[in-house]
Amino acid sequence: MKRVLVTGASGFVGRHAVVPLGEAGFEVHAVSSCAQPAGPECRWHRCNLHEQDSAASLMEEVRPSHLLHLAWYVEPGAYWSSPENLRWVETSLRLARAFAASGGERVVLAGTSAQYDWTTEQNTIGEHGATAPTTLYGASKHALEEILMAWAPAAGVSAACGRLFSLFGPHEHPARLVPSVVVPLLAGRTASVTAGTQFRDYLGVEEAGAAFAALLAETSVTGPVNIASGEGMAVRDLVTLLAEAVGETDLVRFGSLGPRAAEPQRLVADVRRLRDDVGFSPERTIAEALTDTVGWWREQALSR
Amino acid sequence: MKRVLVTGASGFVGRHAVVPLGEAGFEVHAVSSCAQPAGPECRWHRCNLHEQDSAASLMEEVRPSHLLHLAWYVEPGAYWSSPENLRWVETSLRLARAFAASGGERVVLAGTSAQYDWTTEQNTIGEHGATAPTTLYGASKHALEEILMAWAPAAGVSAACGRLFSLFGPHEHPARLVPSVVVPLLAGRTASVTAGTQFRDYLGVEEAGAAFAALLAETSVTGPVNIASGEGMAVRDLVTLLAEAVGETDLVRFGSLGPRAAEPQRLVADVRRLRDDVGFSPERTIAEALTDTVGWWREQALSR
Repeated sequence: MKRVLVTGASGFVGRHAVVPLGEAGFEVHAVSSCAQPAGPECRWHRCNLHEQDSAASLMEEVRPSHLLHLAWYVEPGAYWSSPENLRWVETSLRLARAFAASGGERVVLAGTSAQYDWTTEQNTIGEHGATAPTTLYGASKHALEEILMAWAPAAGVSAACGRLFSLFGPHEHPARLVPSVVVPLLAGRTASVTAGTQFRDYLGVEEAGAAFAALLAETSVTGPVNIASGEGMAVRDLVTLLAEAVGETDLVRFGSLGPRAAEPQRLVADVRRLRDDVGFSPERTIAEALTDTVGWWREQALSR
Repeated sequence: MKRVLVTGASGFVGRHAVVPLGEAGFEVHAVSSCAQPAGPECRWHRCNLHEQDSAASLMEEVRPSHLLHLAWYVEPGAYWSSPENLRWVETSLRLARAFAASGGERVVLAGTSAQYDWTTEQNTIGEHGATAPTTLYGASKHALEEILMAWAPAAGVSAACGRLFSLFGPHEHPARLVPSVVVPLLAGRTASVTAGTQFRDYLGVEEAGAAFAALLAETSVTGPVNIASGEGMAVRDLVTLLAEAVGETDLVRFGSLGPRAAEPQRLVADVRRLRDDVGFSPERTIAEALTDTVGWWREQALSR
């Protein structure tokens, strides 16, 4: 029996991994410091992974063959430089050791495009692209990946890391880009954005959850794998699509926010490894996924 | 008052850092899971840093302004790939957070030449040389350095990492090269070694302890600093110097051990940063230090 433990299962990405993991034949167990949200069925284990013995106890109880480790500190803005990043590296390493000790076979981690060298101008960034994280978040995620990839073979564990680029979708934190545009527009208010000339790789979070499930099930793929659409889109065009979906294109104020410091001009993934080796491609176009997301926010607004 | 906490103070390097730290004006506190060895005076705190609350309790008690973190898992052979490396990353991060939380100002870590890319043939390796650890030990040390360097500025801490090359001296583990030659020769037995054609950078461990003290005191130096002699020496020549110091050159069996897998042919440090920025140079020549080490082993043999 394939049994997966998912950390961060109540989070932005994690809640979209539960259904595809079940469909891939896994008995799905979730661990979270939060109560189980409404949604797909799975076995819920509520505990704080930062407590020293919690990982070992949980692994003894569940004995997962697979581990999908998505939990992290993700408070918008603060997560880039918070010392909570160190705490999550500590906890992730303890979790990995406990997983191997209880007979675990395959682990997939959530990585980030912040692991890459943002100063190298490239059309798309492949997994062999230079890594040079400039933030504590990127350095911590990258360090964790490097340690676990060096550790896994001797520990008898197969390990991969899904490096996420830009995401959007249901339950996104209101401070992040897409909600910061959609929520005011739906209320008939103006939305303040940057000039939006930077290019990003946006993927619906439902697809990200499904991609993690596919990567976990594809045991022959180890090391880093970009989880992204592979399509570069100017932030300005993304915002325009959102505004059109809402029907409020006149309320967008481009350039009313200054550019963020140290942001790369272009950050777009090469997704051949995800498509060819993992065998995953998004079912929706970005435009369809954006329209669905606007629909979700509209429902939220109506139900208040 | 400058107050330093030294981890691994009973270890191979640590015991040689205590005196120079005292001479540099520090009140020296040591933490170790072992009892205090005979030797220089310092305040000894016996505790197991792997226990979750021990680092925080100790920092609250000592309130060090400086931290010299040398403790690690160093069992010869096993340390290259042991999961204990993960445990020491966890503990080191927890220690760093507790240090900053109690008002710590400057931390120096022990790094390693195993952080560098061993496949690039270079005359000497400077701190800007490519890093590409191929072992779990090297990956773990490098990951820890990368995280702490990204963390330190926002935490209000100044951080440096002394990357050690090859060391020898008193109290060295008998399984390592120098004792494996000197101990049998002193007993009139043959010593088995490799062909010894590889070049290494050897430094006396007393100098390494003093270099760490100098690096900790030199608050303007941050990031990696090689701690080494900067002199390349064929292992064969090192062994010959040892055999001459013992007076048993006929008992050395070069080539009776095969080369170790994945060992670089040349691993020699560029030490300009240590010499010019830290202001440290070894007082003894390598030959003098080797002769002193043979003398120490001779005393050990006589006192048994």
